[in-house]
Amino acid sequence: MEFAELIKTPRVDGVILSRPFLPRVEGTLCLTGHHLILSSRQDNSEELWLLHSNIDTIDKRFVGTLGTITIKCKDLRIIHLDIPGMEECLNIASSIETDEWRLSYINKDFTVCPSYPPIVMVPKSIDDEILKKVATFRQGGRFPVLSYYHKKNGMVMMRSAQPLTGTNGRRCKEDEKLINATLRAGKRGYIIDTRSANAAQQARTKGGGFEQEAHYPQWRRIHKSIERYHILQESLIKLVEASNDQSHNMDRWLSKLEASSWLTHVKEILTTACLAAQCIDREGASVLVHGSEGIDSTLQVTSLAQLILDPQSRTINGFEALIEREWLQAGHPFQQRCAQSAYSNSKQKNEAPTFLLFLDCCWQIQRQFSCSFEFNEQFLIVLFEHAYASQFGTFLGNNENERRKLKLQQKTVSLWSWINRPKELEKYFNPLYEANSLVIWPSVAPQSLQLWEGVFLRWNRSSKYLDDAWDEIIHIIESNKDLQAKVNALRRQLTELQTGDGELKSP
Amino acid sequence: MEFAELIKTPRVDGVILSRPFLPRVEGTLCLTGHHLILSSRQDNSEELWLLHSNIDTIDKRFVGTLGTITIKCKDLRIIHLDIPGMEECLNIASSIETDEWRLSYINKDFTVCPSYPPIVMVPKSIDDEILKKVATFRQGGRFPVLSYYHKKNGMVMMRSAQPLTGTNGRRCKEDEKLINATLRAGKRGYIIDTRSANAAQQARTKGGGFEQEAHYPQWRRIHKSIERYHILQESLIKLVEASNDQSHNMDRWLSKLEASSWLTHVKEILTTACLAAQCIDREGASVLVHGSEGIDSTLQVTSLAQLILDPQSRTINGFEALIEREWLQAGHPFQQRCAQSAYSNSKQKNEAPTFLLFLDCCWQIQRQFSCSFEFNEQFLIVLFEHAYASQFGTFLGNNENERRKLKLQQKTVSLWSWINRPKELEKYFNPLYEANSLVIWPSVAPQSLQLWEGVFLRWNRSSKYLDDAWDEIIHIIESNKDLQAKVNALRRQLTELQTGDGELKSP
Repeated sequence: MEFAELIKTPRVDGVILSRPFLPRVEGTLCLTGHHLILSSRQDNSEELWLLHSNIDTIDKRFVGTLGTITIKCKDLRIIHLDIPGMEECLNIASSIETDEWRLSYINKDFTVCPSYPPIVMVPKSIDDEILKKVATFRQGGRFPVLSYYHKKNGMVMMRSAQPLTGTNGRRCKEDEKLINATLRAGKRGYIIDTRSANAAQQARTKGGGFEQEAHYPQWRRIHKSIERYHILQESLIKLVEASNDQSHNMDRWLSKLEASSWLTHVKEILTTACLAAQCIDREGASVLVHGSEGIDSTLQVTSLAQLILDPQSRTINGFEALIEREWLQAGHPFQQRCAQSAYSNSKQKNEAPTFLLFLDCCWQIQRQFSCSFEFNEQFLIVLFEHAYASQFGTFLGNNENERRKLKLQQKTVSLWSWINRPKELEKYFNPLYEANSLVIWPSVAPQSLQLWEGVFLRWNRSSKYLDDAWDEIIHIIESNKDLQAKVNALRRQLTELQTGDGELKSP
Repeated sequence: MEFAELIKTPRVDGVILSRPFLPRVEGTLCLTGHHLILSSRQDNSEELWLLHSNIDTIDKRFVGTLGTITIKCKDLRIIHLDIPGMEECLNIASSIETDEWRLSYINKDFTVCPSYPPIVMVPKSIDDEILKKVATFRQGGRFPVLSYYHKKNGMVMMRSAQPLTGTNGRRCKEDEKLINATLRAGKRGYIIDTRSANAAQQARTKGGGFEQEAHYPQWRRIHKSIERYHILQESLIKLVEASNDQSHNMDRWLSKLEASSWLTHVKEILTTACLAAQCIDREGASVLVHGSEGIDSTLQVTSLAQLILDPQSRTINGFEALIEREWLQAGHPFQQRCAQSAYSNSKQKNEAPTFLLFLDCCWQIQRQFSCSFEFNEQFLIVLFEHAYASQFGTFLGNNENERRKLKLQQKTVSLWSWINRPKELEKYFNPLYEANSLVIWPSVAPQSLQLWEGVFLRWNRSSKYLDDAWDEIIHIIESNKDLQAKVNALRRQLTELQTGDGELKSP
């Protein structure tokens, strides 16, 4: 993400700059990609050009709607900007505060956290030594990292694994410091634990645990129970069995659908993702998401929250990036989870349709906001197929570490490079797409959630009649393009004739 | 229906006409709206012009693919036509055989059957005296009448009330004669009884009953159990209660949806309608449909079978005609059935969402064949609304008899006249419509049937997101029209310029 993208208010008039021992300057404040500039636009008057990278910390204060931003610089300068208008002041502050994050290469050899990628984004004030300590306090070394930055208000979502508090209530001050570093002054954050309070308590007996209020006073912990592992796998098996049921009995079908609990899982996951999104967008709070390992339900929640919050993730490229970032790089063990799907009798405990449930949730949101997604249902189905069986290397292995050891980048072709070829890509465009820059809030009422027919009834009924409608829409849109081209051509011809550039011919 | 519409093969060459004592004539056979014409197209050669209304009976015989149609005329003439090609022969025969039906005015004062319209269509060979006797043998005087004629193969669907056989097994030869008159020589028909075999047996104790094999040997009786009256009403109440449930519990929602049995009713009705359509279209057999009174489940089945078989009924005008013919004229007691819907506590036993279930079934078919219907979902919803509460006279009263007594035609405006105004009509067009002349076979697997959100979740969730998609489609189609108009205008302008008719102006 370019810094320029974070600038919400690029220009404010009537800003007053005050520095010790120097006269005050009133002028226009401009934010560019690299500088904060204050100019009075008067000859001979001094202009302030401050590199963003020179900013060490900032503070903001309000008196009525007049805000004051105090910028403390790395060259030890301290300057004050009085900014009329609370919103402008907050926007300016949140834009330049972004520099609170840095890339860390601490995991470049996968030694700190085998399931993390080599590069992660962490709070700038936290150095690699602290990260190392925090990694020992989180299961599998999965210390809190940045998952998503909400441009609109500068709030962030982080993810991690559970803290290893154990029954003794062990604490780790570095961990506390790390996650507190993501809070704005005086603000509280939310920890969304994807396990029930009971399950989180139970986890302590096995060395795991949760963030205790006493040590994390600025955080409010919320427990949401999302199922995982074999429970999801059994749910999938039951659902597929029900979908294939040929008994033509409505009561039996609805009973089996209910007994599979699949839609209950969909609802739980979506509800938790909405909660995370609400904390960020409506409460203006930062959020940390984790369950136990941080590689299943955690990723469902962080990736779906982004789909809700971030319009970019609803485009084809954005969604590919989301899968790459929040699933592949984040270490979802695709090889283990997707080894078998619904027809296998082998009871391998590592299998779970975590990713399919995520795609199902995406489909539910897409169904509710048909015009807000650049991609169509087919795109989600293709990703489902490739996660389970693929001629491409993308979903092989369980994490980036394994993929590198297998030299997949050298030995295989990426699914994305295949999909992004124009000829392939055109299959996945949603003809109704109209970019929607808003946060979209899906309904999670059980009445609003439906069985994903495109996946679960795909082989049981002719999809012809449903496909026909889409074909018709696509046909209409094509003909629209043709007509527009004709209009343009005819206009050109007409202009040429009228200006005499063209020859006058009889038809 | 005009006779001309029934002509499937209007012209066959190489037909040989033979009559006793006259030379054979080889020529071209033409069927027009009024005449059968045979012309050798040679000067001085005789042409045969035979009025359809002069035909008394016809027979057909085949030797290989050469068919012979023997026409016995009311003027006692007998002529033979040798027609090369079996299909042509069958088409010619089924076109001219249609004259087997006539309009009867026997019920003009509503004395024979109070719930029938003044004019009904019955077999031509059955005179009004016979009809009167049959009426006394069918509950409420509802003797078998023509519901639908399947042009494709000349098969028919009739409807009636149950026969009043009672426990003694009373029979009525006139009834047997009437329904046998609708069978082709050597062909069997199907009686679709919309009650379980058990319920039909039970009905005998109350004076009702069913057609016994011994007296109707050419008919095969099939029992399909469709619920009616208070069972449907309770189902609706439960479904609406479930739809309004705010507990946000998926298991509870699915349990309640199942317990309401609404979708089970939808499935039963659709399955029976498909059966009727199959008998007619695939088995090439005629069908009689009835339950007990012939004013509820009977009409659901006959009207839905038409939606499946008859492309015309999938247009707006055709669907209006279907409602008028198979519900209003056929005597569905709208006033009783739609007096209350789901929120009333009064237990009036005459209320039942028979019509709403029919509309729901229409929606299910429409959902499966999105491009085959000229009207959209909104059209069905509007009909649902007006059946229950309306400022128009159309759905008032319980039958045509009552509506005449109330002078509704003079005192009220028809819903159809309102809907058919272009400005109103445009709300109900399906932008994806492409006339589909085929029979459409909906899937009735429970997995294929869904809750009709547009009616049952309408007030519980924002429909905005779903409406958006349709608005977008409509917008695209509008813009298509605009562009086409622009292309035409520009072409005209260009032609004018090129031919010098227009003035050459600089832009």
